Amino acid sequence: MAGSVFGNIFKISTWGESHGAGLGVVVDGCPAGLTLDEEYIQSFLDRRKPGQSRFSTQRSESDRVKIMSGIFEGKTTGTPISMMVENTSQRSKDYGNIAYCYRPGHADYTFDEKYGFRDYRGGGRSSGRETIGRVAAGAIAVKILTELGITFTTYVRSIGTYEIDYDKFDEAEINNNPLYMPDAQCAEKAALYLKETMMNRDSAGAVVECIVKGTPAGIGEPVFDKLDARLAQAVMSIGAVKAVEIGDGVKVSLSNGSKNNDTFSIKDDKVIKNTNHAGGILGGISDGSDIILRASFKPTASIFQPQQTVTNTHEETILEIKGRHDPIIAPRAVVVVEAMTAITILDELMINCTSKLENIKKIYNK
Amino acid sequence: MAGSVFGNIFKISTWGESHGAGLGVVVDGCPAGLTLDEEYIQSFLDRRKPGQSRFSTQRSESDRVKIMSGIFEGKTTGTPISMMVENTSQRSKDYGNIAYCYRPGHADYTFDEKYGFRDYRGGGRSSGRETIGRVAAGAIAVKILTELGITFTTYVRSIGTYEIDYDKFDEAEINNNPLYMPDAQCAEKAALYLKETMMNRDSAGAVVECIVKGTPAGIGEPVFDKLDARLAQAVMSIGAVKAVEIGDGVKVSLSNGSKNNDTFSIKDDKVIKNTNHAGGILGGISDGSDIILRASFKPTASIFQPQQTVTNTHEETILEIKGRHDPIIAPRAVVVVEAMTAITILDELMINCTSKLENIKKIYNK
Amino acid sequence: MAGSVFGNIFKISTWGESHGAGLGVVVDGCPAGLTLDEEYIQSFLDRRKPGQSRFSTQRSESDRVKIMSGIFEGKTTGTPISMMVENTSQRSKDYGNIAYCYRPGHADYTFDEKYGFRDYRGGGRSSGRETIGRVAAGAIAVKILTELGITFTTYVRSIGTYEIDYDKFDEAEINNNPLYMPDAQCAEKAALYLKETMMNRDSAGAVVECIVKGTPAGIGEPVFDKLDARLAQAVMSIGAVKAVEIGDGVKVSLSNGSKNNDTFSIKDDKVIKNTNHAGGILGGISDGSDIILRASFKPTASIFQPQQTVTNTHEETILEIKGRHDPIIAPRAVVVVEAMTAITILDELMINCTSKLENIKKIYNK
Amino acid sequence: MAGSVFGNIFKISTWGESHGAGLGVVVDGCPAGLTLDEEYIQSFLDRRKPGQSRFSTQRSESDRVKIMSGIFEGKTTGTPISMMVENTSQRSKDYGNIAYCYRPGHADYTFDEKYGFRDYRGGGRSSGRETIGRVAAGAIAVKILTELGITFTTYVRSIGTYEIDYDKFDEAEINNNPLYMPDAQCAEKAALYLKETMMNRDSAGAVVECIVKGTPAGIGEPVFDKLDARLAQAVMSIGAVKAVEIGDGVKVSLSNGSKNNDTFSIKDDKVIKNTNHAGGILGGISDGSDIILRASFKPTASIFQPQQTVTNTHEETILEIKGRHDPIIAPRAVVVVEAMTAITILDELMINCTSKLENIKKIYNK
Repeated sequence: MAGSVFGNIFKISTWGESHGAGLGVVVDGCPAGLTLDEEYIQSFLDRRKPGQSRFSTQRSESDRVKIMSGIFEGKTTGTPISMMVENTSQRSKDYGNIAYCYRPGHADYTFDEKYGFRDYRGGGRSSGRETIGRVAAGAIAVKILTELGITFTTYVRSIGTYEIDYDKFDEAEINNNPLYMPDAQCAEKAALYLKETMMNRDSAGAVVECIVKGTPAGIGEPVFDKLDARLAQAVMSIGAVKAVEIGDGVKVSLSNGSKNNDTFSIKDDKVIKNTNHAGGILGGISDGSDIILRASFKPTASIFQPQQTVTNTHEETILEIKGRHDPIIAPRAVVVVEAMTAITILDELMINCTSKLENIKKIYNK
Repeated sequence: MAGSVFGNIFKISTWGESHGAGLGVVVDGCPAGLTLDEEYIQSFLDRRKPGQSRFSTQRSESDRVKIMSGIFEGKTTGTPISMMVENTSQRSKDYGNIAYCYRPGHADYTFDEKYGFRDYRGGGRSSGRETIGRVAAGAIAVKILTELGITFTTYVRSIGTYEIDYDKFDEAEINNNPLYMPDAQCAEKAALYLKETMMNRDSAGAVVECIVKGTPAGIGEPVFDKLDARLAQAVMSIGAVKAVEIGDGVKVSLSNGSKNNDTFSIKDDKVIKNTNHAGGILGGISDGSDIILRASFKPTASIFQPQQTVTNTHEETILEIKGRHDPIIAPRAVVVVEAMTAITILDELMINCTSKLENIKKIYNK
Repeated sequence: MAGSVFGNIFKISTWGESHGAGLGVVVDGCPAGLTLDEEYIQSFLDRRKPGQSRFSTQRSESDRVKIMSGIFEGKTTGTPISMMVENTSQRSKDYGNIAYCYRPGHADYTFDEKYGFRDYRGGGRSSGRETIGRVAAGAIAVKILTELGITFTTYVRSIGTYEIDYDKFDEAEINNNPLYMPDAQCAEKAALYLKETMMNRDSAGAVVECIVKGTPAGIGEPVFDKLDARLAQAVMSIGAVKAVEIGDGVKVSLSNGSKNNDTFSIKDDKVIKNTNHAGGILGGISDGSDIILRASFKPTASIFQPQQTVTNTHEETILEIKGRHDPIIAPRAVVVVEAMTAITILDELMINCTSKLENIKKIYNK
Repeated sequence: MAGSVFGNIFKISTWGESHGAGLGVVVDGCPAGLTLDEEYIQSFLDRRKPGQSRFSTQRSESDRVKIMSGIFEGKTTGTPISMMVENTSQRSKDYGNIAYCYRPGHADYTFDEKYGFRDYRGGGRSSGRETIGRVAAGAIAVKILTELGITFTTYVRSIGTYEIDYDKFDEAEINNNPLYMPDAQCAEKAALYLKETMMNRDSAGAVVECIVKGTPAGIGEPVFDKLDARLAQAVMSIGAVKAVEIGDGVKVSLSNGSKNNDTFSIKDDKVIKNTNHAGGILGGISDGSDIILRASFKPTASIFQPQQTVTNTHEETILEIKGRHDPIIAPRAVVVVEAMTAITILDELMINCTSKLENIKKIYNK
């Protein structure tokens, strides 16, 4: 109930603090028979690794994942898969005034109010490192979905006002630049903007977009567990996300029905939509077209400027944050958005397996 | 699992179709001792009633709620509260081509793909009438929260490009105009725009905003059940919502940390924030300032123009929708957004009761 | 969370008090495509109807069920099925000292302690009538399971010391005698014992047994959601049940491994067990043989003798219960045990649909 | 959903196989502010450690627990507590015919049927070592409950026909003999019986009893989440348990209402029961008297006699089990029963914190 468990059938339980002994996840409900190994999981964790570029922190976190259970002879057994990363770069250090000062834009104050005290080392549970468990579990979800023909393209769509040009969209470019943008020219401009932002001891916001291809129609439940609703929770639960959009998102309020409605046609005896303003979801259920979602990330809260704040004994003070902090969150969060999207779609896809009596009969040969 | 149950402690289970025998909700987990009667619930349902203005349908739905259980001598007993509205305006009629044509922008196609067939009468379970159960349950949540000092202001913030002017914000005006806008002048302009839209046999989108005052700091769970994450699911699960924003929402991607961070001060020995870009939530936990959320509603999918579509036997056709349909969804959805927000905050507030050992000891006098 | 919701995929939410407006259930997660009507549900409710014999109360409860949603053209649509029974025999009457006295063996005292007050009319939510929702939902579960080849035989195995003789087991006899015993001779003796018990103004206990045939091997989850564990919760949650046994039950403590282990053989190329001490469940998972469970019911708490008790203002008093009460609970509870067993097995069977990756691929044709 | 997650508010997620890298548990929802360290957890794990007597296996499992998260400065922080035990005695060995033979009384066959294959090393997930995570989590639950005045006495009540004499009940004796019996004389006789059983290459069954003192009245939810119902699931989910009884248990079927009803009195202005046939639970809710539950354990399935069985390719064969196996399960399971009981009561106690509006107001000072 305390919020570190997610999912209904494919259920994940994450744990760990930034500077504790380690971080990890237990995945309960992973189907048996999936080929899986540490190298594969590691490849996803590496996508969120710091130190990849000058726009991410230079910490030498190795973040090596260990699979502790649930795999036998290279395959998932259907029992819980426990994965963990031990914290190696944690060093006993003086956390200084962070122990009693509330950093603006961080969860220090709210954790203290909620629990009476907090693990202040590196943000504790509210650290970005909390996403390690999400990414490890998401890697599994992506692998299963891939075997079902469902694929993910996730990237940074915009940084500040620098937005990609869809006419120049180049999927191969995404992993080519440290900003994970599918438009090299835009990535260059955004890099300059970030450089300037860093010189100003400031940070920048961004938008991450995820496109999911190949989801069969029918995934998602009516009413509260609409596919878009659960994706909204999944993605809004990533630290620093302040808005989630599906398809045309906030722009729909400016549109008209005649333009926003996606009309249907038949192609090769299949129902297709002639446009996709809906972002692949109608009435909360996938319609077979691309699922499109966007997350707006706020600028990194840790900036290297003096900021007005208060202490836990209610005294006003000026805080200067030290250490290493990314000037932007989004590039390292691309894989987190993908992970949460995949976990959610897989969970809903598994739920949908029993939506029709004929499906159940098919499983039990009746 | 099929998605008509929401909440963890304050758990609601809704049921009903547009043209079935009725619609309703069972609320399990409502604390004992709350004064409650049908008149109060009815006052919330009346806010979503059609026929209130020329911008809502002229159906004479009486929508009288009956409380079937869970109340004794005027108070909640702690056992499930079952509430229902019988469908009175359902009439045996010819649903014509709706039975086999897929209306663009509706869930007809996706329901058929999911379940093999669908109740096509008036949209069945995907009808806007599905929200009756949400509103009845939300009324209870609002009442409890009010007793705890938490209040709601919910309104239409913009229709098309017509957005309220915060300098003219007048809370009393909200219930004064049929568009539920807190700015009379803006409401007038929006009304003209809607009139024009209707003449074009078209529909319009809008943004609904909800401001929650008085939430104590500490509500919301870290990681997946962040308060904003659960609000995102709750609000995105309302039909026609395509984006959910918290605080500055999509604008954070254009901001900088130095501007977006809300600095802290002390006032009357209390921690306050000097600004509220965060919308009252830090690290997924309420910070004691106003919670601000916005939902972007797409234009009504049912428009009175011929639209290209297909049948369930995969033939292309032209569909002309008949009947009575609002040209805009948002005004009648204001109370739905408020209901879902209240249900979510109450549920998280109840979860938070056991976050500290000292709280549990307080309850059991240890 | 407050305990009136049960199940994971096939999820039921019951409501209602003995003397409120009615009682009912919402079933969420019922697969689409099942043929269903009120007559069928009614046939299950009739099995728990009072007034069938001199050993059940003579109240003329008609208990007519109404299906309010989830059915279209005679089939389940996949959306919530709301069913209810309106209370017709509720009459405004003087509940007398029951309002402030705690009946021994009843939940009056514990409800007051939990909620601060209680609906004392006829036991309120703790009445046996609470099972109406269970039985209506169970009828659906039984119907689905029957289509999958799974069948139920449920009966009273013993009353007091009068236990059926398995050599004379006659399934057809179960519905032939008012005690639902599969052994006519034993039923006769038990009837005499009950008659005597009634003359003594006393009540009797009994054991109900349920045998489930045809469950495929593989149903049930390891660890906490073992099939027997969930059955134990399901059946222990029926009022008056004080013990749940699987297979040989309490007798296993007297046995030895060499005798208690069920050895395996091959028959028609199928794995079979040569005995069934385990009651059809190994390691929490069905093994394909008959599932056997038993529930021990305590004697009816309402007896027509003066009993020492206390009031809600902590005064000692003597209570004499009036009204109509069965001298034995088990016969009318037979269908309740069957309902809870069926709901649990169906829910676990649906969960099992996604235990293997190849099952999921089968559903999505991959 | 796959069954390795238990609890609603105090939620545990266990993982690990007998001969994998390790076993562990993540506890989500533990309240902040509890003093906790590894030594304390270890003291509980030591109670289930093998090698304590000649009646338990002589494996030298050290089973040292590590707390990986959720503790800061000696106290729980409110975030997930991850605990694990690395498997040290796992050695690469030849598992011989166990890999393809189904051991009678074990879950080999049902796991294969469910998942298509299984981790056959030492029983994999169905090993008794699976309970390590339960015990570690249970230790935390016991500690919290102790601070609330709730205490546990758990012991072996009978082995075969050797049952303790309550007149000689000596709590201090429980940890004095290797069979955890509170009656030294009975323990001696049972030891002789076990010795004989071992000489016969056989195994014995037993009954474990747990008495919980100090639970306040009001814990447990009506209907499906009755305290006894959830205890039944919790305890039946322990491997080898075939029956769960509350209070007088199976004997109630032989009783009469006049005897079985516990009458009430007033003592020191408190409501007390003059007897406790109900085992401390009325209508599924604790009544303030001792909670009494019993679990019947079947004899160890692994016996050193040739047994008839089949292979996974459906051939009949004779199996001779090798290795080290306890001739009785119950003594080492005493702490497991206590753990599951404590987890369940704590979870229900936390749920009960919000049963009354006045409780919620108390937490938020309204």
